[in-house]
Amino acid sequence: MDIYDLDTPSLIVDLDLMERNIKEMADWCRAHNINLRPHMKPIKVPAIAHMLLEAGAKGICCQKLGEAEVMAQAGIKDILIPYPIVGKQKLERLTRLAKQCKLTVAVDSEYVAKEISKQAVKDGCTIRVIVELFMGRTGVPTPKGVLKLAKKILKMPGLSFEGIMSYPTDEKTGETVKLLKDNGIPVNMVSGRPDIYPLGSKEPLYHQIGLTEIRTGIYVLGAGKYYRFRRDKDDPRKVYYADRSALRVLCTVVSRPIPNMAIIDGGIKTFSSYAGPPYGYFVDYPKALMERMSVEHGHVDISECAEKPRIGEKVTVVPNHPGICINLHDTLIGVRKGRVETIWPILARGKVQ
Amino acid sequence: MDIYDLDTPSLIVDLDLMERNIKEMADWCRAHNINLRPHMKPIKVPAIAHMLLEAGAKGICCQKLGEAEVMAQAGIKDILIPYPIVGKQKLERLTRLAKQCKLTVAVDSEYVAKEISKQAVKDGCTIRVIVELFMGRTGVPTPKGVLKLAKKILKMPGLSFEGIMSYPTDEKTGETVKLLKDNGIPVNMVSGRPDIYPLGSKEPLYHQIGLTEIRTGIYVLGAGKYYRFRRDKDDPRKVYYADRSALRVLCTVVSRPIPNMAIIDGGIKTFSSYAGPPYGYFVDYPKALMERMSVEHGHVDISECAEKPRIGEKVTVVPNHPGICINLHDTLIGVRKGRVETIWPILARGKVQ
Repeated sequence: MDIYDLDTPSLIVDLDLMERNIKEMADWCRAHNINLRPHMKPIKVPAIAHMLLEAGAKGICCQKLGEAEVMAQAGIKDILIPYPIVGKQKLERLTRLAKQCKLTVAVDSEYVAKEISKQAVKDGCTIRVIVELFMGRTGVPTPKGVLKLAKKILKMPGLSFEGIMSYPTDEKTGETVKLLKDNGIPVNMVSGRPDIYPLGSKEPLYHQIGLTEIRTGIYVLGAGKYYRFRRDKDDPRKVYYADRSALRVLCTVVSRPIPNMAIIDGGIKTFSSYAGPPYGYFVDYPKALMERMSVEHGHVDISECAEKPRIGEKVTVVPNHPGICINLHDTLIGVRKGRVETIWPILARGKVQ
Repeated sequence: MDIYDLDTPSLIVDLDLMERNIKEMADWCRAHNINLRPHMKPIKVPAIAHMLLEAGAKGICCQKLGEAEVMAQAGIKDILIPYPIVGKQKLERLTRLAKQCKLTVAVDSEYVAKEISKQAVKDGCTIRVIVELFMGRTGVPTPKGVLKLAKKILKMPGLSFEGIMSYPTDEKTGETVKLLKDNGIPVNMVSGRPDIYPLGSKEPLYHQIGLTEIRTGIYVLGAGKYYRFRRDKDDPRKVYYADRSALRVLCTVVSRPIPNMAIIDGGIKTFSSYAGPPYGYFVDYPKALMERMSVEHGHVDISECAEKPRIGEKVTVVPNHPGICINLHDTLIGVRKGRVETIWPILARGKVQ
């Protein structure tokens, strides 16, 4: 089936590009001797998780318990949840999940650790725990605070203290590792997210700060922080790295109401309003700019396009944020050289609980 | 079941508030002798569509064909799709749908009208058509252009010309109605969206411009344009009309990393990033401000709250845009006086095709 036979809007992934993204990052991590734990938050498809593991990833990372449940059911055996698990229902789900896979969770307060400990004892299991260091979101604010919490966790039944994590990651992570080790606390796992993308510009920090693994997911469908498609700040029509973006939305031009405007059948509910304007990058019309979106319409300025798209024509658009866009769709269509090869249900879509 | 026994994030609707919103608008339209056609785009639950019809609505409105299919399957018999239907798959779906209900579609180009005509002839049915007037999005730019297209439609087999629509709506709609009638073209339906909310400030235009019906949906869950909760432009902590907002998200405080910050378990994938910051209104903590969101975290400034929410505590948040928020969730939980009364699947969620 040709992609232009698909109804629109359809969410598609260029398999050649995605496979290149997966391979380059796996090779890079292997060459630099650090474990890779891809984040499923911007991917949500278990089949892609398996591709990542086959390429060499150590395990995966899921922001929400519901996402982790989907992945475990698909046979994934090593999952990190870097998110505080709070509340009766979630604690019960957590211990059930821990019996199905090697599960590690992050905590950042005595309250959360204690509640998990109580549930683990009640349900007869041990939960692997890491402490999150605060870098502006969740986490314990200081290395000393991490040490204090780690000592408490070591005494809590049903918990196994494994190490620490941070997001983002800087030298403070290294200080914390050192403080723990100096106090005789073994640190098996140090999970971070430094700027280590293959095309990235910074010298990697991970050796200095003792990272054992990195968490990142956006590189798979939308390439990485440093090479997801970006616009020139002086000229929004000039973009970089669009050839790294594997995720696209196939849309149809449904109206050409006035000469320099095209309306496409995707808006906020198809792309999300995150980041922009302009929204998306038009692969076939690089000079087109989606300046506005309604809930179900995209308003595209085509004044600079030499050839203008016609009503009924299908156009391919790279969304601004693939990870948020994918959460709006039920199906991801894998294409290669313009032909449909695979249709995946996005099984972890909407798993916010 | 008490709402605080729900897992989080959960999307809930206060049934007393929603019923008041539904009744006030229906009463107002009845008193002012204009038909009401609620828009399902920000509602998506067929059971609520039935409540609206029972309150007196003439029919419903669906932005996408997929949404209309869900509603027709739920037994709704009068549906307007104010959106250009383009492409082979959609044309086939359109004629199938027209055999199940009284279906009207808007067109704004000869191309779209011709394609629908061809499909209708092929499938042996007649499609009711209205022409959309351009007011900045889709539509025909001038009243004369509408007349020209209407004349062509009158000659196309398989189509029945019914009238016009606009969005938004102003005096140009009235001019167009007059021009059509002066040219002997019967206009049965004039669908608009003037500012006629019960608590609205403007003098209604609909009598002057000959509207037969109004399309609006946001009033049901989030109240109307003029009384959806709004912030004071000088003081973001001061809000208006929050007591009209029936839709809420129940969240849990999962972290209190530093004294004046609370992290809740809902972010962009729970609320959407549309409109803000700040994001949402905290019913129990009116002085709290959600200044930032990550994909799955809400970052809340609680510096001005006299009492501060604790880790593990559940909080109720009115989303900034109920219609975009509802599209992120699979289930809507109807509550009355703090107790769960109904659980509805959001059947039209994600129907962007």
